[in-house]
Amino acid sequence: MLDPVRWASHGENRLPGKLRLIDQTRLPEELQYIETDDLAEIHDAIRRLVVRGAPAIGCAAALGLAAVMQHARDRSPHDYLTEARRAAEFLAGARPTAVNLAWALDRCMTRLERESAVRGAAGETTAAVLEDALLDEALAILREDLDLCRGIGEHGLAVFEGRSGLGVLTHCNAGALATSDYGTALAPIYRAHEMGMGPRVFADETRPLLQGSRLTVWELQRAGVDVTLICDNMAAQVMREDRVDLVIVGADRIAANGDAANKIGTYGVAVLARSHGIPFYVAAPYSTIDRALETGESIPIEQRDPDEVRRGFGKLTAPPDCKVYNPAFDVTPAGLIAGIITERGILRPPYTAAIEALFASVDGEHARRNTAPPT
Amino acid sequence: MLDPVRWASHGENRLPGKLRLIDQTRLPEELQYIETDDLAEIHDAIRRLVVRGAPAIGCAAALGLAAVMQHARDRSPHDYLTEARRAAEFLAGARPTAVNLAWALDRCMTRLERESAVRGAAGETTAAVLEDALLDEALAILREDLDLCRGIGEHGLAVFEGRSGLGVLTHCNAGALATSDYGTALAPIYRAHEMGMGPRVFADETRPLLQGSRLTVWELQRAGVDVTLICDNMAAQVMREDRVDLVIVGADRIAANGDAANKIGTYGVAVLARSHGIPFYVAAPYSTIDRALETGESIPIEQRDPDEVRRGFGKLTAPPDCKVYNPAFDVTPAGLIAGIITERGILRPPYTAAIEALFASVDGEHARRNTAPPT
Repeated sequence: MLDPVRWASHGENRLPGKLRLIDQTRLPEELQYIETDDLAEIHDAIRRLVVRGAPAIGCAAALGLAAVMQHARDRSPHDYLTEARRAAEFLAGARPTAVNLAWALDRCMTRLERESAVRGAAGETTAAVLEDALLDEALAILREDLDLCRGIGEHGLAVFEGRSGLGVLTHCNAGALATSDYGTALAPIYRAHEMGMGPRVFADETRPLLQGSRLTVWELQRAGVDVTLICDNMAAQVMREDRVDLVIVGADRIAANGDAANKIGTYGVAVLARSHGIPFYVAAPYSTIDRALETGESIPIEQRDPDEVRRGFGKLTAPPDCKVYNPAFDVTPAGLIAGIITERGILRPPYTAAIEALFASVDGEHARRNTAPPT
Repeated sequence: MLDPVRWASHGENRLPGKLRLIDQTRLPEELQYIETDDLAEIHDAIRRLVVRGAPAIGCAAALGLAAVMQHARDRSPHDYLTEARRAAEFLAGARPTAVNLAWALDRCMTRLERESAVRGAAGETTAAVLEDALLDEALAILREDLDLCRGIGEHGLAVFEGRSGLGVLTHCNAGALATSDYGTALAPIYRAHEMGMGPRVFADETRPLLQGSRLTVWELQRAGVDVTLICDNMAAQVMREDRVDLVIVGADRIAANGDAANKIGTYGVAVLARSHGIPFYVAAPYSTIDRALETGESIPIEQRDPDEVRRGFGKLTAPPDCKVYNPAFDVTPAGLIAGIITERGILRPPYTAAIEALFASVDGEHARRNTAPPT
C-alpha cells in the first residue's frame, strides 16, 4: 500500500524522527517524498496540498507537531508547552476549514496538557517525557486512521456480494492518498482486489481540480487495480453500456438523516446511478456523521475561485472575465444512497434510525469502558 | 452576429474574392480572421479546426473551392473542370468523416458539371462562366445555412413560451461558430435575447475539448447574452438549485425514431434533466435526420485519442500510460427528448410519426416544384 503520511525514524528508536509525506503536488508525474521537522515547511506542505484529504491532513499535522517539537527538547516543561501551543496554532492556520487539522492538533495538545498536569503533580515532567507523550498521541492518531481504513475495506467488501469482475465507478479521490493508507471509498476496492476479485474501476477525472485523474487513477494503477479514466460527462454512457455494477464515493460530511456532502459532481453521479438501477454507496468513517445537522439542506455550498475552471491547466480555456459557477461540493440526498459504509459496518436506510443505533452502540461501548466490570 | 465563414470581396464586384474564416484555434484568446484563396491553406484550416461544426465546414469548403478556382480562370473549360475536381477531392480529404464537407463539395461539382454540359452544348462555356456558377452555388450553400439557423431560431423561440429570464443549459458548441451564424442549439437563445427576454445560459465546459468554455461562452458573452460557465459535473447541482428551466443541445445525427447522437455528455444531461422535471430539447436542421437509421442503437460510438483526456491542455494530468475511455459522442434516447427543433418547426413525440410527416411534406413540396401548375 501507499504510505502518504508516516513517521520516519532512521535509527533503532522512534526518536529522533521526521514527518514524511508523499508530495502529492508532483503526482502523477513523479513519486517524491518530503521529510521534514521544520515548522514552516510543514505549514507550507499542508497549505500547498502536498498532503490532502481530511484524515491525511490530521495525521500529518499531529506527526508534524511531534517532529517540530524535538527542537524544544532542551526547554523547561513550561516553555515546551508554550512552544507546542504556538506551533499547533500556527499549523492549524494552514487550512482553517479543515476540521481534522484542528481536531488532531487539539487532541495532541490535550494529551500534552494532561501529561504535564499528571506528571507535574508528581514532579516528574521533563520536555523529554512530553516529547514522548506527544509522539505517542500522534502515532495513535495515525494507527486509528489505518485501522479505520481497514475497517471500511473489510465491511465494504460486502457490497461486492462475492462477485468477481464487477465494474465500480468512483468520483474524486477518497483513496490511499487522502488517508494514511487504503482510503475510504477505495478501501473496499483495494480489499476486493487483494481477494482476487478483479474489480474494474472507472474513475471520473473530477473537474476542476482533477483529483480523479491525478490521484485515483495513479494510486489504483500503482496497486495493480484495473482502472479506466473517464471525463465526468462520460459516466452516464459507461453506465448505459452496463459496465458499472456499483458506485462508491467518499463524503466530507453526513447529516443525521444520511444526506451526504462530497466533491461537486457526486450528486449527479447518484442521480445517474439511480436512473440506471445501479446501487450508490458512500464510504466514510463514522466520525464524518454530524448529528447536529438534521439534513444536508443546511450545509452552505462554498464557492471556489473561478480561475480553477477558466484556467485550470495553466492555460486559459475560457474568456478571462467570464462568469463561472464553481461550487466545491454538493449534497446527495439520503434517498439516493444504497448504503453508508463505515468502519463499524454498513448503514442501510432508513438512515435516521441506523445512525441513532450506531451512536447508541458507540456511547454504550464508551460507557462500558469507563465503568468497572461488575464482579 | 458572428461571421465565422464568409466570402470576402473588397471591391464592388463579388469577384475577385477570398474565403474569410474566424480562426477558432485562437479563441477565446483573440478574434482573428484568415483570408485566403490558397488551396493548401484552406485544406489546412479545415484539418486544424480553424473552422469546425458540420454546417460551417460545408460552407467553408464550397467558398474555399470558389476562391481557389480563381487561379484557373485562364484555363480551357475542360482544364478548369479537371482542376476543380482535383481541388475538391483534395479538400474533401481534410476531414474524411465530416459529412457536410463531402456534401458541399459534391454539390459544387454537380453544379459545375451541369453548367458545363448545358452551356457546352450551346458552345458558350468559358472558365469565367464556370467560375461564376461555382461562386453562385457556394453562396447559395452559405445563404441556405443562414436561413436554416434563422428558421431554427424562429421556431425554437416557442420553447420559451414567452417567459423572460429563463435558465437554459447547453452542452458543447452548437452555436454561431459551428454554422455560418446564429447556430442551431444557440439560435433560439439568440432569438430570445434579441426579443429582450433575457435568457440566462449555463454552458457546460464540455470535456475533453472544452468547446463549451472556449466557444459557447465566448460567443454568447460577445453577443451580450448572460452566460455562466460550469464544469460538466456541476449541471446536476445547477438543476437542483432550480436555475435551469430548459435544456437545448445540438445533434450530429438523428434516427428515424428520434434518438439523437451528439457530443459525449449529452445523454447524461438528458437523464439529469428528466429527473429534475426539466424539458430537454434538441435543435438541428432537418437534414440531420437520417431515416435510414431505425434507432440510435446502430450508431457506432467512435473512440478518440486517450491523450485528449490525459493531457488535454498540454499538461499531463493523469498517468501517461493509463487506460482511458474517450467516446466522441453518445446517443440520447427519444424518450428523454421533449422536442426536436428544426427549421421546419418543432417535432414532438411520437417522433417516428412526426418525422414521417415532416419528410412527406418536404417530398410533397419537391413534387409540386417539379410539376407544372395546372392551367
